[in-house]
Amino acid sequence: MNNFIYHTPTKVYFGKDEEFKVGKIIKEYGGTKVLIHYGGGSAVKSGLLDRVKECLSDVGLEYVELGGVKPNPELPLVRKGIELCIKENVDFVLAVGGGSVIDSAKDIANGVANPDIDVYEFTKKTVAPQKTLPKGVILTLAAAGSEMSASCVITNPETGEKRGYNSVCNRMDFAIENPELTYTVNKYQTACGAVDIAMHTMERYFCPGTDTYLTDSIAESVIKSVLKAGVDAINNPYDYSARANMMWASSLAHNDLTHCGREFSLPVHQFEHEVSGMYTEITHGAGLAALWASWARYVYKANIPRFLQFAHNVWNIDIDFENQEKTVIKAIKMQEDYYKSIGMPTSLKELGIKPEDLEPLAYKCSFGKTRVLDGYMKLGYDDMLNIYKMAY
Amino acid sequence: MNNFIYHTPTKVYFGKDEEFKVGKIIKEYGGTKVLIHYGGGSAVKSGLLDRVKECLSDVGLEYVELGGVKPNPELPLVRKGIELCIKENVDFVLAVGGGSVIDSAKDIANGVANPDIDVYEFTKKTVAPQKTLPKGVILTLAAAGSEMSASCVITNPETGEKRGYNSVCNRMDFAIENPELTYTVNKYQTACGAVDIAMHTMERYFCPGTDTYLTDSIAESVIKSVLKAGVDAINNPYDYSARANMMWASSLAHNDLTHCGREFSLPVHQFEHEVSGMYTEITHGAGLAALWASWARYVYKANIPRFLQFAHNVWNIDIDFENQEKTVIKAIKMQEDYYKSIGMPTSLKELGIKPEDLEPLAYKCSFGKTRVLDGYMKLGYDDMLNIYKMAY
Repeated sequence: MNNFIYHTPTKVYFGKDEEFKVGKIIKEYGGTKVLIHYGGGSAVKSGLLDRVKECLSDVGLEYVELGGVKPNPELPLVRKGIELCIKENVDFVLAVGGGSVIDSAKDIANGVANPDIDVYEFTKKTVAPQKTLPKGVILTLAAAGSEMSASCVITNPETGEKRGYNSVCNRMDFAIENPELTYTVNKYQTACGAVDIAMHTMERYFCPGTDTYLTDSIAESVIKSVLKAGVDAINNPYDYSARANMMWASSLAHNDLTHCGREFSLPVHQFEHEVSGMYTEITHGAGLAALWASWARYVYKANIPRFLQFAHNVWNIDIDFENQEKTVIKAIKMQEDYYKSIGMPTSLKELGIKPEDLEPLAYKCSFGKTRVLDGYMKLGYDDMLNIYKMAY
Repeated sequence: MNNFIYHTPTKVYFGKDEEFKVGKIIKEYGGTKVLIHYGGGSAVKSGLLDRVKECLSDVGLEYVELGGVKPNPELPLVRKGIELCIKENVDFVLAVGGGSVIDSAKDIANGVANPDIDVYEFTKKTVAPQKTLPKGVILTLAAAGSEMSASCVITNPETGEKRGYNSVCNRMDFAIENPELTYTVNKYQTACGAVDIAMHTMERYFCPGTDTYLTDSIAESVIKSVLKAGVDAINNPYDYSARANMMWASSLAHNDLTHCGREFSLPVHQFEHEVSGMYTEITHGAGLAALWASWARYVYKANIPRFLQFAHNVWNIDIDFENQEKTVIKAIKMQEDYYKSIGMPTSLKELGIKPEDLEPLAYKCSFGKTRVLDGYMKLGYDDMLNIYKMAY
């Protein structure tokens, strides 16, 4: 087991009607003027935004609003948010939405607290933020796990780059998680969420490490639970149990619990970031589903025991010890079939990617042939291109 | 799934040599003068205490010392610690030890930060602490889980009462967990630790709740991992993997992760607190082992499905659907046999309890026949006495 630091300070308020506490909670963090940050119309249409405003007003909190966050949140809106917060003396950022809104809110909070640094330097990792504004979220989508994670992923539309950076400054102070707020998430987006949640932990699970059986077992719990919850929520969007287990899995899958003692990298995420960075209409989870099996088939020989464990403990496959690869291939196929069963793509072609974009994708993913992705198998430009081609 | 709040802000530094960072870390929390709080001679003899002092001096931190914490930490030493800290202007409390030292340190930190309140009022739950001193721990025993928990258990030797209280003020700011520091824990204490760790999660697992399959699965992961790690560590005290998984399980078993969405109570702990409150030489884990199976046999009929899940998912027992109680009884027996296999008592007699003390134990545990313990089956004085007698 490797040494590790585990620090998940986000305070989670989980369950029905918890969002009504938001004003009181913000005041506990010293907020006096709030930026309410949100995405498209759903938070407005559902009446959630009005409820939030009422809760803030009820406790005497002032606020300004900034909507319009797109899936794959973009740098220009972050800049606009920073400008607005500084102009309006905002001292608390409240995200109302899913991962994109949360990431945009994180970047705004970091930008406001560090006015002398161009915020994109954080994404480029040339500077690490040392301070941030207090911030919280009312979660409306179980998917990205950003509500408890240290991660923030921002897309620069000028370059088509979608990049993430990790920092303790990216931890939300609180996350309000009412599973009922996800009842209206449609089947496709629910499926994308289930893929994304499971993938946060599956990626960690397949990182190098030894003697982490407690962590492994917890990781398997998260993966299996979300595979089940995803299907149940798709079949019955108003299934509280499914929505609740899926939402809680979203937070645990990406808050670092599931890689304690193992190395940490998210290679399939890197592949996908290029895809949805270039084709911004693609939902992250769908991109991950289209890529995972090809990544797995490309790398599994580098650590067959780990894939056997996955086969046995996640997919309940009896291991064929005389033909272990057969077991591994079967597990990868079962995972792929699961994606198909919930309406997810399992190839880039299905996502409308043009074949001539595969080389540019590999080029971008390798940072112009300079980056090698970590893992049991190191993946450079040629490997990346092979995987993109396999996934086509 | 019930609503819940999840908040585990403790920052964990896990792994080999992490204790050397202690000075630097304390300074991050603003400490300038430290109380080093410890127990018996082992931290002294092993040289750990000297290393800690050197680490503090290296970064210019002043300190005072207070050793002598006994297993089942006592109120008079807490009072002495508070007095010392106030006299010496201590602004940071560092526990070097296991659960007893940590709980004593927590109570001292709460007492120092609230000089106008008698510290025992917190334990009596007549007042809840609203503030505390920054505090951290270098953990030397995997057992109590106090390093990440909100709990603090103190014994009043005048009355023989051993009582716990929960508060966010009881969360350590940081926990340094180097599994190597537990290599010298003897077999008996290692076994007691394994019992205590698993019990923190088993108690939560048997609390009322529904639709918490993610939480359940994580709980089962923690229980199974510590059952394995405990045996491995007893068989080979220098097995890093065993010590590491056991230590990490200690933290996760009691930091609230394993009851998210379920009710929370620790009934077997309440039974045991009276035993080791009255017989202070008894180690908590041994007391728990002596009591658990009797508690389980007394209550299981109130929720057979839950015990079947335990039988199947923890002990891999094929369920006899036509005779479900048989399966449950088998699982309880397997848990009991496990205790025997690691040298733990499975009756109060083995612990040297006098039969005439059973009634006083039930009387104390029921707070003079006024308290009823929560759970699938409510347990009043008569039930308590029955269970103590069954466990004899």
